[in-house]
Amino acid sequence: MHASGPTSEGENTVPTIVIIGGVAGGASAATRARRLNETARIILLEKDADVSFANCGMPYYIGGEIEQRGKLIVADARLLERRFRIEVRTRCEALSIDREARTVRVRSIPHGVEYDLPYDRLILAPGASPFVPEMDGVNAPNVFTLRSLADCDRLHGYLEREKTGLLRAVVVGAGFIGLEMVEQLHRRGLKVALLEALPQVLPPLDVEMAHIVEEMLREKGVDLFLQAPLASFSVENERVVAVHTRSGQTLPTDLVILGMGVRPNVALAQAAGLSLGDTRHIAVNASFQTSDPFIYAVGDAVDYPHEMTGRPASVALAGPANRAGRLAGQHAATGEAPAMGGVLGTAIVRVFGCTAAVTGLSMKAAKRAGIDATAVMIEAGHHAGYYPGAQKMILKVVYDPASGRVLGAQAVGGDGVDKRVDVIATVIHFNGVLGDLTRLDLAYAPPFGSARDPVHVVGFAGENQRAGLVQVLQPDACLDDLQVVDVRTHAEVEKGGKLLKASHIPLDELRNRLEELDSTLPTVVVCRSGLRGWVGARILSQSGFSKVYNLSGGMLMRAHACPTETLV
Amino acid sequence: MHASGPTSEGENTVPTIVIIGGVAGGASAATRARRLNETARIILLEKDADVSFANCGMPYYIGGEIEQRGKLIVADARLLERRFRIEVRTRCEALSIDREARTVRVRSIPHGVEYDLPYDRLILAPGASPFVPEMDGVNAPNVFTLRSLADCDRLHGYLEREKTGLLRAVVVGAGFIGLEMVEQLHRRGLKVALLEALPQVLPPLDVEMAHIVEEMLREKGVDLFLQAPLASFSVENERVVAVHTRSGQTLPTDLVILGMGVRPNVALAQAAGLSLGDTRHIAVNASFQTSDPFIYAVGDAVDYPHEMTGRPASVALAGPANRAGRLAGQHAATGEAPAMGGVLGTAIVRVFGCTAAVTGLSMKAAKRAGIDATAVMIEAGHHAGYYPGAQKMILKVVYDPASGRVLGAQAVGGDGVDKRVDVIATVIHFNGVLGDLTRLDLAYAPPFGSARDPVHVVGFAGENQRAGLVQVLQPDACLDDLQVVDVRTHAEVEKGGKLLKASHIPLDELRNRLEELDSTLPTVVVCRSGLRGWVGARILSQSGFSKVYNLSGGMLMRAHACPTETLV
Repeated sequence: MHASGPTSEGENTVPTIVIIGGVAGGASAATRARRLNETARIILLEKDADVSFANCGMPYYIGGEIEQRGKLIVADARLLERRFRIEVRTRCEALSIDREARTVRVRSIPHGVEYDLPYDRLILAPGASPFVPEMDGVNAPNVFTLRSLADCDRLHGYLEREKTGLLRAVVVGAGFIGLEMVEQLHRRGLKVALLEALPQVLPPLDVEMAHIVEEMLREKGVDLFLQAPLASFSVENERVVAVHTRSGQTLPTDLVILGMGVRPNVALAQAAGLSLGDTRHIAVNASFQTSDPFIYAVGDAVDYPHEMTGRPASVALAGPANRAGRLAGQHAATGEAPAMGGVLGTAIVRVFGCTAAVTGLSMKAAKRAGIDATAVMIEAGHHAGYYPGAQKMILKVVYDPASGRVLGAQAVGGDGVDKRVDVIATVIHFNGVLGDLTRLDLAYAPPFGSARDPVHVVGFAGENQRAGLVQVLQPDACLDDLQVVDVRTHAEVEKGGKLLKASHIPLDELRNRLEELDSTLPTVVVCRSGLRGWVGARILSQSGFSKVYNLSGGMLMRAHACPTETLV
Repeated sequence: MHASGPTSEGENTVPTIVIIGGVAGGASAATRARRLNETARIILLEKDADVSFANCGMPYYIGGEIEQRGKLIVADARLLERRFRIEVRTRCEALSIDREARTVRVRSIPHGVEYDLPYDRLILAPGASPFVPEMDGVNAPNVFTLRSLADCDRLHGYLEREKTGLLRAVVVGAGFIGLEMVEQLHRRGLKVALLEALPQVLPPLDVEMAHIVEEMLREKGVDLFLQAPLASFSVENERVVAVHTRSGQTLPTDLVILGMGVRPNVALAQAAGLSLGDTRHIAVNASFQTSDPFIYAVGDAVDYPHEMTGRPASVALAGPANRAGRLAGQHAATGEAPAMGGVLGTAIVRVFGCTAAVTGLSMKAAKRAGIDATAVMIEAGHHAGYYPGAQKMILKVVYDPASGRVLGAQAVGGDGVDKRVDVIATVIHFNGVLGDLTRLDLAYAPPFGSARDPVHVVGFAGENQRAGLVQVLQPDACLDDLQVVDVRTHAEVEKGGKLLKASHIPLDELRNRLEELDSTLPTVVVCRSGLRGWVGARILSQSGFSKVYNLSGGMLMRAHACPTETLV
């Protein structure tokens, strides 16, 4: 079937802005365009039934934290039509773009009709699709991805329908969505196994930070398999009944969730001859224009320059998609818009009451990008220790040793992790240095923080490192050629064990027992979290010891960085 | 009695650093000095029995949220002595300073002995004392201030002892401590009246923001009296039984808390001939040196340059005191230290589950300082609305209309207020503009925020204002000469009432009902919170209306700014 659009379609004298895709920044683009241009014709095409929905909320709906499906529908078509005079065409698929004629070939899915829709400006927000490996059983009715509302309905329906028979689930991929799904399936009473091909969960984090999360997952009863890439499925009666890993495990299961990352939806753009970038996303300039200036692209199908590396980063996150959509809508409606600026890849996940967040570069990302970096790490309470309910967090800041510029931060803990990472993301936005962390005037009252906020403390510690007041070794350092002094209390050492070769001298006795140590040997001081180690290192380095280090993060982070090391 | 100090006192060859006062930055100075200088002699004089304690925690101990008094003792003398080799002399009062001889005259309170203590560097951390008016009854056993641990013990003891007979309390002064005390006394079951001489609670906030807190206090059953300065007490049997205000109220009471601000303790410094600044605090340079370079001063007895005005600001807050102490200790121990930078007066209070916070300049502070400023205000959820438990906050940003530079922020709400104010305080630290607020890459997952964080949204709204896309009127604006269009729904208007002269046209009908309005008249669009008003204002200003405003904060903040205005 083949039909032309309404007769008015080609005759418009006001500019027509067509947006393909409501979810990943498309709805933002549409409403922003309308606010700035009352006369433009604005048409939003969406191949699904709902114009926009909260995809970040889906795991919580699956698990039952969000009870009503309707809560996920954040911008309904009626509102867009009535308030913003946007022509919303749901269940309409864009088949191709004729850039010469400036038309989009559209197919109305329910009616089967096709027509050409003229545009003056076209905004592509096609999003991304979950990666699904080619594998027997991958299309079984108990194997799921979670990206579209249809995915969500399918999984939710299955869980409700089969409730009584479901005992075990396997989640493949320990990224942010994978971890959220682990928590929510656990919440529903399933025994969950989590497979990850890499040696750690949460790949954007450094390994010892991720290890804190791994330990917590195991404590909650999650079967965690690292360096365990998916190999194959066993299928019985058309259902997957077991998952096999390349490292040899076989995991019987009633349900599989694939959280193996996403691939940008670039087929339409590519078929239209638009350029793709190095990372195979749609290439755009600072105004989100593609290689055709009449066509914009936003959301997970494009990548954004990373503020720290300058290289394209495919973040696939809602925040940047939303802000990009808004700016592309503004540019399409008015011909100008400010630049969005780079992204930092700031991301956060809450899993079983533990929060892990990251912004900017990790140590390994810096290494990968060839950027000289070192790190400082502290343990701190999220508010004053004397006020009830203080939760510990580990806060790590990656910085440039030459300039002190803050390059990134990671935090794992409970409440207040989000605040510290947001504050440090703001410091990074302004190219701030460690000293800036110490000088921030942050809001303090006992329920909210400390007179010395964790952000100040990590800045102080970083400045001490940089000034050479203390030399640090990172948690995974090789200690073989060093004299090791453990300054924890007797009780701590008895309870937790100490490194094989460490001399144990409690900090408060150190000044009186210096003769037990050899001041000519390079020496590392070790405590529980690194705080007393720094005091101890200062005592030694001011007492004639030739070379003194503090072990950053103490025994706490050593255990996370070198979990198999022998203690006595 | 009169005795010289230990014989070694005058014979030291290593520098001696003497610190007067452990609480307000003194302990920080001492430990920092030790970390940097292992050989210096460091002596800490404190006239009270405890060397340092958490004064910010006292209200919570009074109310029972903090159960053990021991929790308030944050740095005990034993730790300072054993770990940092600091000579702690508690219950020792500094009587005078001989700057010529570089000695402090010290009196040991328990022993009654006096001696001269030589110093090479002296750090003053004398703190501040509560203001107590000269008034009959002010020394009665049921009238309290809350500054020292002795104050705290006295009040706590009284409340425990007289528990059964205490029904009513009057708190004088609606600053941060006053509000914390209101909550904690209420928590103990007392009926609380709160008196404030000014027309609002929380003087650092603008009036309409403070009004949100006032309404909440009244809802909780607090008797709030504004513009009601303390006049006198009625005393019976040596106890205050009623409080009289200058505005004519008489409030029977069993207990009075004075929270009328503090005065810096400058007597010792003044007697030694050290200069005071304009605000009668001890004058210091960027390294916290007084007019005598061998003497430093930190904490609530000094003022700090305000980052926005450049003028001295007496903040009397724990954060700056702590950071200043650290830097003064560093300078005293090594002869150098980085500058602390200015303060923003960032402050926060939690009262009955409501959180109010401020950083930088309010509109009225800008006016007072002669700084051109305007404001933008939004209402937003502290996290995604579709995730359960989202709490509303009102966020106001004050900015320079010419440059867009962010000058200050205020927020009132529940969870997440602290995070947004800290992020904006960080933006202000870097002299950021509204556009920076929109470009921050903040951590988003449904339990923590929104893809459009309140910080982004207030930045968007501010940029729209600055770009002239919408002109706004502040919540307290005079609307007399304007055509007023209320674009809320019928249900909202029926429930909440509307302004006397407003035409009511729901937003989604506005485009079709333009002929009901006079496009030649200056027009203000009003909605509930200001968000739909901005959409409505855009529709009108693009439809030939000559001059269109949005009412910032909508009816919500209008009610707070003009609480007595008539609605129909």
